[in-house]
Order: sequence, then structure tokens, then C-alpha cells
Amino acid sequence: MNIKLRLAEKAKDVEKALNDYLAIREPKKLYKAMAHIPLAGGKRLRPVMAQLTCEMVGGNGEKAIPFAAALEAIHNFTLVHDDVMDDDDLRHGVSACHSVFGLPTAILAGDSLFAYAFEMITESIVSDNIKSELVRHTAYTVRRIAEGQQMDIDFEEEETVDPELYLEMIRLKTSILFGSAAYGGALIGGKDKNEANNLRQMAIWVGLGFQIWDDYLDATASAEVLGKPSGSDIRQGKRTLLVIEALSRTKNKERNELIKILDKSGNTDAEVERAVTIMSDCGALDNCRKKALGYLNGAKATIGKYPDSDAKTMLEELLEYMVTRGH
Amino acid sequence: MNIKLRLAEKAKDVEKALNDYLAIREPKKLYKAMAHIPLAGGKRLRPVMAQLTCEMVGGNGEKAIPFAAALEAIHNFTLVHDDVMDDDDLRHGVSACHSVFGLPTAILAGDSLFAYAFEMITESIVSDNIKSELVRHTAYTVRRIAEGQQMDIDFEEEETVDPELYLEMIRLKTSILFGSAAYGGALIGGKDKNEANNLRQMAIWVGLGFQIWDDYLDATASAEVLGKPSGSDIRQGKRTLLVIEALSRTKNKERNELIKILDKSGNTDAEVERAVTIMSDCGALDNCRKKALGYLNGAKATIGKYPDSDAKTMLEELLEYMVTRGH
Repeated sequence: MNIKLRLAEKAKDVEKALNDYLAIREPKKLYKAMAHIPLAGGKRLRPVMAQLTCEMVGGNGEKAIPFAAALEAIHNFTLVHDDVMDDDDLRHGVSACHSVFGLPTAILAGDSLFAYAFEMITESIVSDNIKSELVRHTAYTVRRIAEGQQMDIDFEEEETVDPELYLEMIRLKTSILFGSAAYGGALIGGKDKNEANNLRQMAIWVGLGFQIWDDYLDATASAEVLGKPSGSDIRQGKRTLLVIEALSRTKNKERNELIKILDKSGNTDAEVERAVTIMSDCGALDNCRKKALGYLNGAKATIGKYPDSDAKTMLEELLEYMVTRGH
Repeated sequence: MNIKLRLAEKAKDVEKALNDYLAIREPKKLYKAMAHIPLAGGKRLRPVMAQLTCEMVGGNGEKAIPFAAALEAIHNFTLVHDDVMDDDDLRHGVSACHSVFGLPTAILAGDSLFAYAFEMITESIVSDNIKSELVRHTAYTVRRIAEGQQMDIDFEEEETVDPELYLEMIRLKTSILFGSAAYGGALIGGKDKNEANNLRQMAIWVGLGFQIWDDYLDATASAEVLGKPSGSDIRQGKRTLLVIEALSRTKNKERNELIKILDKSGNTDAEVERAVTIMSDCGALDNCRKKALGYLNGAKATIGKYPDSDAKTMLEELLEYMVTRGH
């Protein structure tokens, strides 16, 4: 069984919990809107990371289910609000929540998923002391995610962005929720805050690698592997870390050529290829690949200290999958 | 010193806490957007109700400050998102959050205020057991508030609304957060869930009275008392409980005349007066007044059972103010 299938198998309990929590009730439009994106699919990477971390440190993964479901509710609430903010129409292969239910209900559905997440956390089978820390940490994390999203909005108005600042933005926007998964999993598994923080750092590294690998893959993998046209970031003129890095490494003619391709709509395949060549020649592409793999290695080193177990093996596979998928 | 001044005096600690929590930091645009509406004013009715309930049951009101600040953060997060949903431009005499900072940042600011509220709750100086119950109850309340908001959206598409259903909508949308204030205040004050639930019911009644009195006042009070043109609900064609009640009590000519005035824009003062006369003649106006006062009396009876104290006296004044202000 390949890792994707085993992830789906591992996510079954969370999948069931989400289906129970998101049962349709009155007012139906709100609950349908709440269930729309969370139940449209997704790999449940955050819940599985919480469960596996809990098990790897010697805990009972079942105790982490409500917290794992809460993380998925939070991840999906941010997706629903993101799509409203960006006015994106598609998500996970279905219409965005606001495209189906309208803007007011989509905002409410996001708010309500967020509220529900805290109800789920308080249903965790752990001491009140740990519950309280899970709540504090998760709320803090969501506030920091919002900071990352604001940085992303701010960057859109800037001509150039410092690569270090950009990295901090993706750390907040996409990595720290993985961090919470490992942190909470470790606490529920009986470990103290210090050890939980080390595992949080492990997951943040993987989250960074995951995002950077995404940029790298988009420029280098075939359309078959991606399941979408390759170079779509370039076609959309997205300022990914790869692009930011390339812009900071190129000058004059190459730099202007790259910017021209990024800012143009309806690029030909040859133009997209030319952009990839510029990003490759200046070393940005290789730098991204190395960065992503460096984060993966850091994460694997943290896990390596734990005694061998099925959970540890699967967590290692999860990390590999997140950062080296498609190659 | 009148009750308004004494409320402001009582709210000083929460005011300070809010100012501390909402200090501007990076990314500045997000934190400015978060502080914009909460620090633009407001009577802090929910925080003061939490503190006074805590003190009336014999607790230390200072212990309720973080929870009280959390309620105000939640109240303001709903205002910020409401204004986005309704595309309203004004709030508390200042421009709405999205009018100043744009839609994406306003959505993020609301999300972030909401997250922050849970951080505040976990800073309460109470046992982890109570903290966990405060979190569960507050999260549940916010999900129910969203249900009320969805009902309100659904009603806009209906020709007529059942007055009982409408009452349930305002119970969820505006009253249960007052309920949480009293519930949390009682728990922090050392009371059990049963007693806290009785006090929650007390505050829900007052919240209902508060909202219904608002409708009544708009139709009957002078512009000086209201601080805005009287009859503004009628001019905007709002379906308040008063209007729903009048529509269910009138027939044929009167009913059609009322609907015509409500659905017309740019009504003359004479037309607004005519609508008030119809609502008065059918008994709807008097019914609203009686309903509001009935809720107030129910609430006062609950409080009456507690031993006399400064907190009890002030809480009684707060209830009176909420339901009979302006007359």
C-alpha cells in the first residue's frame, strides 16, 4: 500500500469525527456551507501528524482525535475565508464556499468552523490543564496565521520582498499549524512543553519544506505529476519564494525578462520555459530544492532520536511525502 | 453620578485590558484594523455584566477581567464581520473596519480578534477546570450566534416571518452573548453550573428586552433621545420584531399601507408617523413595550434572590438601563 493510501487509512477516525461534527442541522444553509469544503476531501495531513506524533511519543492516538479534527476545522476555516478574500472560485476541485452559498454565509461558515474547533478541543480526553494549554496554543497560532496572511497582503503592494521576510510569512501562514499538530500531539501523548516544542519545530520545518517544495515542483514537474498545467505559478505571476529568490539573484536583462513574463497574462509554453531557465541559471531553483531538503533533514533528525515504532516509521514517510513528493 | 458614568467607571479595568491586548505591533495594518472598532467606544455592557455577576455571587470581579475582555473582543469581531456582510459603512460613529482597511484585512481582523478572545480566556485567574468550561461555553455560544445570523439572512428572503421564530433569531444573534457574560461571571465567582445557568437565563431575558426596547424606542422616542432621526428602522424598511408583530396583527388595507411605507425609500415624516400609528393601533407597539418590560421583570426576580450588595444594586440599575433607557 503506498503512502497516500496509508495516510487515508490513518485519517479514517478523524474523517468519521468530522462527518459527525459537521452533520447538517438547522439552519441548513449554514451547516451545508460549513461542511462544503471540509468534506470535499483533502489529505488530512495536520490531523495525521497530530495522531502520529502522539503515538510516536508513546501516547494513545485515539485521545488526539478531537484535537486532530479541530486542526482540520481550523485549516478549512482559513481556506473558506482565504477564498473570500482572494475571490477564488475553486477549492479542492469544487466551487468555493462563497461561490455556492454567497459571501455572508461563507464568512459565517468560516467563523462557525473556527468556533467549533474550540468546542472539539474541549472534548479531548486529557486533563483540564492540558486542554487549557491546547486552547491557548491553538488560539495563539490562529492569530499568528492571520499575521502571516496580512504580511502576504502587504507584500502584494511591494516592488521587491526580502527573501528572509518572505520565509517568515510562509512560516506563519502555512507552517505553524503543522507545528501545532505536533505540539498538541506530543502534549496529549504525555510529554512536557519543552519536548512538545522540539516536535513543534520539527513540524514547522516540514511545513516550510512542504511549501517550498510546492514552488519547486510547479516549475519542474510534468503536468501529469502535478495534476494541473506545470508552471502555473509562473503563468499567474505568483511571487513564490522561488521567484523572490530569483529576483534577488538576477540583474538587468534577465531580471527584467523574468518580471515581464510574470506580469504578462496568457504566456506561451516557450515563455514559461524561458522563465524556468532564468530561475535555474541564477541558482534559485537549486537553492529552493536544497532548502526544502535541508528542512526535511532537520525534521528527520529530531524524529530519529525516538525509539523505533510503527508510528515513527509512518511519520518519517509522511515527512518524506510532504517534501519530496512528485520526484 | 448617573448610570452611564458609573458604567464607564466600572468598565475602566476592562478598558485598560483591551488597550493592552490591542497594542499596535507588526504587521501594523492588521493590528490597527483589530483595534479600530473595539477602541472606538461602546458601553462595554457585556464585560460589566460579567464583572457585576461575579461580584454579586460573592466572587472577586478582578478575576473576571480577562474573560470580560474576551467577551468584548468577540462582540467586536461579530460587528466587524457583520459590517462586511451587510456592506455597512459606519459603526460607533466611525468608518467600518472594511471601509478603512479593505475587505481582506477586515475579515482577518475579525478572525484575529476571535482567536485573541480564547487567548484571553486562558489567562483567567481560575482553575483549569473552569477555564475549560469557559472555553467550551464561549465557543458554543459563538457557533449559535452564527446560527442566529444565518436565520436573519434567511428571513430576508421570506415574505412573512413567524414572530416566535424571529424571537429565537434575536435570542441567538444578540441575547446569548449577554447570557455568556452572566454564566462566566457566576462560574468565575465560584458558583456551580446550575446556578450559572439561572443567571445566564436572567441575562438572556435582559438581552431580549434590550433588543425589543430598541425597536420600540426607535418608533416612539424623539431624535434628541435617540441621537439619530426617530423612525430610522421604518425609513430603512427593517423587519424588526415590532414590524413582524404589526404585520401579523394587521390585514388588508392597513397591512398593505404599512408594507408600502416600509418598502419605499425616502419616506416623509408624515409617512413614518402613519406607520407608527398603524403599529400602535393594532396593538403591536404596546405588545413590544410589555414584552420588553416582562423580560426585565423576569431578570430582576432572579437577581432579587441574592443578598443586597453594591454589585447587586448596580446590576439592577444596569438591567433597568438596558431595557427602559430613553423613557
